[in-house]
Amino acid sequence: MEDEAVVLDYWASPFGARVRIALAEKGISYTHKFENLANKSPLLVEMNPVHQKIPVLIHGGKPICESDIIIQYIDEIWKNNSPLLPSDHYHRAKARFLVDFINTKIYDSSKKIWMGSAEDQECGKMELIEWSKVLEKELGDKPYLGGEDFGFADIAFVPFYNWFIVFKTFANFNIEEDCPKLVDWGKRCMRRDTVSKSLPDPQQVYEAYLEFKDRLGNTN
Amino acid sequence: MEDEAVVLDYWASPFGARVRIALAEKGISYTHKFENLANKSPLLVEMNPVHQKIPVLIHGGKPICESDIIIQYIDEIWKNNSPLLPSDHYHRAKARFLVDFINTKIYDSSKKIWMGSAEDQECGKMELIEWSKVLEKELGDKPYLGGEDFGFADIAFVPFYNWFIVFKTFANFNIEEDCPKLVDWGKRCMRRDTVSKSLPDPQQVYEAYLEFKDRLGNTN
Repeated sequence: MEDEAVVLDYWASPFGARVRIALAEKGISYTHKFENLANKSPLLVEMNPVHQKIPVLIHGGKPICESDIIIQYIDEIWKNNSPLLPSDHYHRAKARFLVDFINTKIYDSSKKIWMGSAEDQECGKMELIEWSKVLEKELGDKPYLGGEDFGFADIAFVPFYNWFIVFKTFANFNIEEDCPKLVDWGKRCMRRDTVSKSLPDPQQVYEAYLEFKDRLGNTN
Repeated sequence: MEDEAVVLDYWASPFGARVRIALAEKGISYTHKFENLANKSPLLVEMNPVHQKIPVLIHGGKPICESDIIIQYIDEIWKNNSPLLPSDHYHRAKARFLVDFINTKIYDSSKKIWMGSAEDQECGKMELIEWSKVLEKELGDKPYLGGEDFGFADIAFVPFYNWFIVFKTFANFNIEEDCPKLVDWGKRCMRRDTVSKSLPDPQQVYEAYLEFKDRLGNTN
């Protein structure tokens, strides 16, 4: 079918989860293909030859890569249901800024917690508290990062917030004291079916992480 | 004035140059404020508290940060003259993908050439040839990266292409053999006043780099 949507994905990926949430918000049905990242499919290599990474949205046979670019594409193509980006230009720029902040600062510090030495992990936790305070301040008394409606920045952040739940278990990471509004925001997002059904179970993510570390021979 | 545009900038910044080019393409006049990055102005800290980086576009008193986000904002606000992003959704996504590729791959490898050890520098040069080949392929027989018209991806890349000219002088870096179409593209872009008047002189950039390295005590 000309307009068929296919998503190349990996179950535990926060970037994949963003695309799942965006498509669920828009009510779009699609064919879901899960990749084995240790043995990538020829389709993934063909569709994203530069990075060979998931997620890829294939729409009408053409690939769109990079989760934040995919969300913007989804919002532009299916523009009549549940807008994801604000219509106001300044607020659109603000949402893009927050997503870039999440892609760089939040992601880089989270990687230190997942994969770094004990020292890196402590550093990653301190940074992540700082970045969470930025988002706490940005959120203010609004229900969502973009304002009244769940949208682009919320979709970009909530899969990483799901990591925070895992970090709580194994890295003693907690933002409840510093960022109570962000914790409420997280609960508010999780009450949406589009979010809760799109995110992997934190316990399963943790188990996969332990297996992964074990394969690398890095377990303590 | 409510709609006044102010740009906080630094003369040698490729990211600042992107904003200069975009505003020149749109024919927008603005107040240009150059920052001393060793002693940032209170205005910069106020307008970009998260990153405290240039460029910042202040429009109607409100700050927009991150060069690629600023270009998209400029294109949305002044939409009637010289469109910078393609109107077709797939090609918009493609342009955003290329800009992300330039922001990450091209920039990271360029940093190795500027600031790395001799070994890092060689690695940076090899990578930069690879990334240039990606852009050469993307360009194909089109005059510009987005097609017939000079636009988003061209604006994002040309300030880094200007670095290539500096790398040719001091790092023996040359893409002429591998990427002849990209070299023609570079010449084509430089013939535009909006580009040539917005980019710093490569010789001056090189001298500023030598001074910077000297201050760091890293000169050979």
